[in-house]
Amino acid sequence: MLIREAVDGDWQAIWPFLHEIVSAGETFSWPRDIDEVTAREMWMPSATSRTVVAVADDGTVLGSARMYANHMGPASHIASASFMVDARHSRRGVGRALGEDMLAWARSAGFRGVQFNAVVESNTRAVALWRSLGFEIIGTVPEGFRSPAHGYVGLHIMYRKL
Amino acid sequence: MLIREAVDGDWQAIWPFLHEIVSAGETFSWPRDIDEVTAREMWMPSATSRTVVAVADDGTVLGSARMYANHMGPASHIASASFMVDARHSRRGVGRALGEDMLAWARSAGFRGVQFNAVVESNTRAVALWRSLGFEIIGTVPEGFRSPAHGYVGLHIMYRKL
Repeated sequence: MLIREAVDGDWQAIWPFLHEIVSAGETFSWPRDIDEVTAREMWMPSATSRTVVAVADDGTVLGSARMYANHMGPASHIASASFMVDARHSRRGVGRALGEDMLAWARSAGFRGVQFNAVVESNTRAVALWRSLGFEIIGTVPEGFRSPAHGYVGLHIMYRKL
Repeated sequence: MLIREAVDGDWQAIWPFLHEIVSAGETFSWPRDIDEVTAREMWMPSATSRTVVAVADDGTVLGSARMYANHMGPASHIASASFMVDARHSRRGVGRALGEDMLAWARSAGFRGVQFNAVVESNTRAVALWRSLGFEIIGTVPEGFRSPAHGYVGLHIMYRKL
């Protein structure tokens, strides 16, 4: 598996699983009925963000991550990121590889820490993955997320120092 | 003091104190060298936010607040907001009046809670004000903010249920 920066041509591979993940409404705080144009603007690289794809040896895009400063100005030394893994390629370490790449990028870019603002409590695999990469839950918004399957669940804020 | 929705004509009164507050770098996680056009886009009302001004009896704009959903989709039931008070009119209850207006708006708009993402630890008056309005610190990003006067300080996430 290779992690490389996303290019325009990757979007057609990203959109199907991004759409599936966002529509499901279980893990992402994006509008569930998002249209493709808006989603592309929100996910693909911009002047203030970096987007990567995880690619299999045969060129298949397995997942993607977007990373950026969490705030601006006097709080711009803390990075954040969002992650999407194609369900057809789950349990192959794609999320972990994307997370490790993100941490390496944040370190090399000079960030002092990484904060995830909205890790859904019922997304236990994500919570466990981030813990295993050194993150801890520094706070939870009670009933901050409404899961179609689980109803109102907490929304964790997770952090790790770099 | 009256709190009313901001209109285009209010910008010329808001920009001087907004600029002063953001440039000082002590309380806002915005670029300290922000230009007026960008600041106006970030502060004035948009399709997904409401901006108000606090106005004295003589028409002077004393402060301003911007409020919006903190996340989208399945997490769009938690509101957030940012507040600016002109230093020349501080200690007159402007922040409290703006905060109370924000809570009333969030309730009437059907939000279930309010989350502030970045309350600077050294901004003790703001922390005390939000506590007095029913907020609690649910987490703190260690050294999440770099204050010109205090160096690295924590960045609180504050929350109250509605």
